[in-house]
Amino acid sequence: MIRANDPAIKSWVETPENTDFPIQNLPFGIGKAGNKSPGVVSAIGNYIIDLRVLAQHGFFEGMEFDTNVFEKPFLNDMIALGKPITSAIRNRLSQVLDTDYDEWDASELKEYFLYPMEEVQMMLPVKVGDYTDFYSSKEHATNVGTMFRDPDNALLPNWLHLPVGYHGRASSIISSGTPIHRPKGQQRPDPDKPPVFGPCKLLDFELEMGFIVGKQTAVGQSISTKEAEDHIFGLVIFNDWSARDIQKWEYVPLGPFLGKNFASTISPWVVTLEALEPFKIPGYKQDPKILPYLEYEGDKNYDLELEVSILPENGVSTVICQSNFKYMYWNMVQQLAHHSVNGCNFNVGDLCASGTISGPDESAFGSMLELSWKGTKTLKLNGGEERKFIKDGDTVIMKAFGKKDGVRIGFGEASGKILPAS
Amino acid sequence: MIRANDPAIKSWVETPENTDFPIQNLPFGIGKAGNKSPGVVSAIGNYIIDLRVLAQHGFFEGMEFDTNVFEKPFLNDMIALGKPITSAIRNRLSQVLDTDYDEWDASELKEYFLYPMEEVQMMLPVKVGDYTDFYSSKEHATNVGTMFRDPDNALLPNWLHLPVGYHGRASSIISSGTPIHRPKGQQRPDPDKPPVFGPCKLLDFELEMGFIVGKQTAVGQSISTKEAEDHIFGLVIFNDWSARDIQKWEYVPLGPFLGKNFASTISPWVVTLEALEPFKIPGYKQDPKILPYLEYEGDKNYDLELEVSILPENGVSTVICQSNFKYMYWNMVQQLAHHSVNGCNFNVGDLCASGTISGPDESAFGSMLELSWKGTKTLKLNGGEERKFIKDGDTVIMKAFGKKDGVRIGFGEASGKILPAS
Repeated sequence: MIRANDPAIKSWVETPENTDFPIQNLPFGIGKAGNKSPGVVSAIGNYIIDLRVLAQHGFFEGMEFDTNVFEKPFLNDMIALGKPITSAIRNRLSQVLDTDYDEWDASELKEYFLYPMEEVQMMLPVKVGDYTDFYSSKEHATNVGTMFRDPDNALLPNWLHLPVGYHGRASSIISSGTPIHRPKGQQRPDPDKPPVFGPCKLLDFELEMGFIVGKQTAVGQSISTKEAEDHIFGLVIFNDWSARDIQKWEYVPLGPFLGKNFASTISPWVVTLEALEPFKIPGYKQDPKILPYLEYEGDKNYDLELEVSILPENGVSTVICQSNFKYMYWNMVQQLAHHSVNGCNFNVGDLCASGTISGPDESAFGSMLELSWKGTKTLKLNGGEERKFIKDGDTVIMKAFGKKDGVRIGFGEASGKILPAS
Repeated sequence: MIRANDPAIKSWVETPENTDFPIQNLPFGIGKAGNKSPGVVSAIGNYIIDLRVLAQHGFFEGMEFDTNVFEKPFLNDMIALGKPITSAIRNRLSQVLDTDYDEWDASELKEYFLYPMEEVQMMLPVKVGDYTDFYSSKEHATNVGTMFRDPDNALLPNWLHLPVGYHGRASSIISSGTPIHRPKGQQRPDPDKPPVFGPCKLLDFELEMGFIVGKQTAVGQSISTKEAEDHIFGLVIFNDWSARDIQKWEYVPLGPFLGKNFASTISPWVVTLEALEPFKIPGYKQDPKILPYLEYEGDKNYDLELEVSILPENGVSTVICQSNFKYMYWNMVQQLAHHSVNGCNFNVGDLCASGTISGPDESAFGSMLELSWKGTKTLKLNGGEERKFIKDGDTVIMKAFGKKDGVRIGFGEASGKILPAS
């Protein structure tokens, strides 16, 4: 077991019972406290940990890296140090906060490096170079194929042979809490009339998880399924906002474009792949047989509960979807091996999102498109409101966490409020 | 007329008759001379102009910008200064090289800031944040639709209403001269058998031009067709290498992915939009009527001759395509207005490529797919070889230039050699 993951470790920092951030998590993010410039932070319970302050007090001494990486406005430079270093940083944080670990006890300095969460503004954690979106939940692909094509041949011929994916827009990936204006664009609601221009009428979310690439590769270099985990730094929650009416009209033959690229919201916390190690489980049986470059060994799916809520303006919140990251037909190591098999190169901070994660039950459908079945059904919200798609003033809140041996490892949330079209 | 464009200006630097780089061009790039670190350069005739040296000698004094931008390994920071500054830089270069302009004569320093072209290694000119590929040549879209769908309905319903585009991979955009290993990947040559894995058999180029975004916008901000030119710094030649067999199997329903993202080659020179001003011509009549946000005023197409050659290993070169950038149904200002109409934001250095630029004649088809009509025809090369697609050892060379009033404004070339699959 990775030392920092040990459920037996207790911290001298008091943490609420069901916190996403026990001492076994220690995710990374970029936070801005008061007048300080943004820098690298972690979290424990209801506190933000300022790694710069710990560095100033010598808590990373003897570790061979430049602590200036903690001063940067994105995690990229820290991630680029490589897993031996970033794992050691997480492990040192664990020691610093561990009640029973005396060598690196920082409890007397707590007022200097622990800030109440509400006093810290969390920022976009990584500068994303390239962003790719996969389409790897079989239930989701089947739902979409059933709705828009043929229920008897819902999956296209390639779907079971490779993890279908496409490139998305990196510039419009925004941090949780950033409001989004309803996008405008061209739509053709009536196929017998010319297209029209106006605010999107069918605004949707997509419940996804994304992984952050931690290692640079050169053009022409491939990453095998065996090597892939070493290239994945950690995960974020990812809301792939979608304008269904814009998407429907534009997407043939080259794929989604303006229907997606107005905004994507990610969680402020990157949970390391190591912290998620306890939640590994076997994946789907893949039939038909896959090509050798997609074969893998060991458990590469993750049992992480996912949840989506809608909070209407001046209303109360309703959980509308409960899914799980385990519903991935194609796992992350297969995605990365496929993505790089042609020599496509990666930079540190590149992001690969899963595609909408829908489970077999209706309650686990990861988009309004599926939950309202193309607008043919109505979702009843607490407080009496109804929804088929997302309305102005709605905040969509996504959560993700794993729970095992009494330890809950969570991602906080990825939330975004929809403002009227500007 | 922009002063630096004046055909009457003569330089004290001798330039060959048909050079791409007369004093009226003055494009920007990143060059590495000898042991010097890469920095901002321009070109005149067969010489590279080192802007750092000119800055050290005070030739940009009185202009309000930090000449440190010339020390950077990409043009982005210089471009981000904004057009009033970058235009002034180009204008000053023109004065420095102008025989008749005495105030800023640098002829006595020529050995310090002019290097023979063959002594300078040209690098990737910009760090591309996001890269978008459009599909804006009607002839190309018609050819593809005719081959793969229905000759009577070659264009899909949306094509005449909006500039179809999709996101591409920024990380694998490489500079001219960088060799490329033939990509490997999944293909399904026989639809009745399972897919296979191996080197691409149908390797192709796509003749495109790309524009470099010069101005940052915020998420939620749109750029009108009227504002668009102010957001475009300049143009490059763009070879959108394509693996047709990989693309064909993977691309439904989300668009091209591994069939494209192994590499894209751009010219080392970014020719400013200002230097291309003389080549503006009217565009296509757009029918059916377009929506108001896509309407524009003035001439926004460019009469730039484009040419593709194949040079086989140990062989002789053959021009296989002569097209023109004027064959754009959707022009750049329409592309940018469309791309941002939903609030999609841009960073300096983002690149938007045109899509394959095919003209009405067969000789103007901008890809092997079209030239060999899906492999049904054979192209005869000088020296006796034949091609349907690109072979290992082939170098594909693209050129672009405009010519008017005795002045030729060119882009140099974008070339890439195909090495065997690794």
